[in-house]
Amino acid sequence: MEQFSVRTTSRCELVPVTAQVRSIVRNAGVESGACVVFCPHTTAGLTINENADPDVARDIVYMLQKLVPADDPGYRHLEGNSAAHILASLVGSSVHLMVENGGLKLGTWQGVFLVEFDGPRTRKVWVQVIGT
Amino acid sequence: MEQFSVRTTSRCELVPVTAQVRSIVRNAGVESGACVVFCPHTTAGLTINENADPDVARDIVYMLQKLVPADDPGYRHLEGNSAAHILASLVGSSVHLMVENGGLKLGTWQGVFLVEFDGPRTRKVWVQVIGT
Amino acid sequence: MEQFSVRTTSRCELVPVTAQVRSIVRNAGVESGACVVFCPHTTAGLTINENADPDVARDIVYMLQKLVPADDPGYRHLEGNSAAHILASLVGSSVHLMVENGGLKLGTWQGVFLVEFDGPRTRKVWVQVIGT
Repeated sequence: MEQFSVRTTSRCELVPVTAQVRSIVRNAGVESGACVVFCPHTTAGLTINENADPDVARDIVYMLQKLVPADDPGYRHLEGNSAAHILASLVGSSVHLMVENGGLKLGTWQGVFLVEFDGPRTRKVWVQVIGT
Repeated sequence: MEQFSVRTTSRCELVPVTAQVRSIVRNAGVESGACVVFCPHTTAGLTINENADPDVARDIVYMLQKLVPADDPGYRHLEGNSAAHILASLVGSSVHLMVENGGLKLGTWQGVFLVEFDGPRTRKVWVQVIGT
Repeated sequence: MEQFSVRTTSRCELVPVTAQVRSIVRNAGVESGACVVFCPHTTAGLTINENADPDVARDIVYMLQKLVPADDPGYRHLEGNSAAHILASLVGSSVHLMVENGGLKLGTWQGVFLVEFDGPRTRKVWVQVIGT
C-alpha cells in the first residue's frame, strides 16, 4: 500500500489525483491487475468523472451541496458537518481501477478525484495495486 | 480484461447486463475469486439492483432524474449534460461481484445494470475476473 | 467467502458491522491484501462512515429518507418499497477495504455499516478476503 496527501482549499471541491495514482501504478511493477484508491476519512470521498472541462467538477460540487444542504434543522451531530458525512456515503470511499500493460486504464475522459466535503484540510489517499 | 458494448435507447435508463457478465465469468476459468465490472464513461454508471420487476429500474430512473434535474440555472458546463455527470458520481463507475464454483455469485433478486444518464449512445463495459 | 447475519430493527438504519468484518479478516490468515464486503440484497447497502458519534449515522438516515421519500406519487413498483431500491443504488452494494499485517486497515474514525432501507429484516453480509 502506498499513500499520498492532498491539501484541499475550500469546503467542498473535487481535487484531481489521477497523476498521483498513475505514478504509483507505474512504479508498482504490476503488468496486469487492479488498483484500488481508498479515502480513509469520513467527510471526504473518491469519484471518477470528467477531467477535461473543470466546469463538470464545479457543477458536481454545486449540485451535491444543493441536494444535501450544510444546514438543516433536522441534523443532530454536534460537530455541524453532517452534510459532509452524508455526501461521503453517497459518493463512496473508494474507486476500483484496472491496470494493463503496467499502467492505469481509464476511459478517454475519466479522471480520479478526491471529493472534499468538509475542507479545507489535508487529506490522505491510500492506493493499493494488485496483480502480477 | 474483457469488454462488451451496450446500445442504450433513451436518455436515462437501466440496462440489464447480468447475462453478459455471467458469460465472461464462466469463460474466464476462475473457480473462486472476484469480478469487477467497470464503466469507462463519465455520463453513465453501473449498479446492482432488482432484476425481477422492471418497475424497480423504472422507479430508480424516475427518482434520480427528479433528484438531479437535467436543467438547473446553476449549471455551467456548456455541453448541457451536467446532470448526467453528477448522477454518474452518485451511482458509481464500478461494481464488485464475487465468483464461486466458476460462476457469478449474486443475491436472489440481484442483477447488474448499466445506468445510462446521457443516452441514447453505445456504451462499453469492461469486465475483470480475478482469482484462481 | 464468509458470511454473517444482521438483524435490523427499524425501516431505515445504519447497523455497525466492523467487528464482524474485523474478525473474519483476522481469521482469514491473509497478511496483506484486500477485503470486500458485499450486500446480497436489493433494498439494503453497505457504507463506510464515522463510528464515534451515533448521531452521524442517525443524520445520514434522516437525510437519505428526506432526499428519497418513501411515498411519491410517481412510483410504480407494486411492492411499495421503491425508495429502498433507489437508496440501495445510491449508497452501493459493497465496500472495499485494505488488509495489512493480518488486520483490517481503516481510517481513524471509519467503521463499516450495513444500511437497511426496508427493515426490519434479517440481512446477510458476504465477506471476501483476498491476498497472501
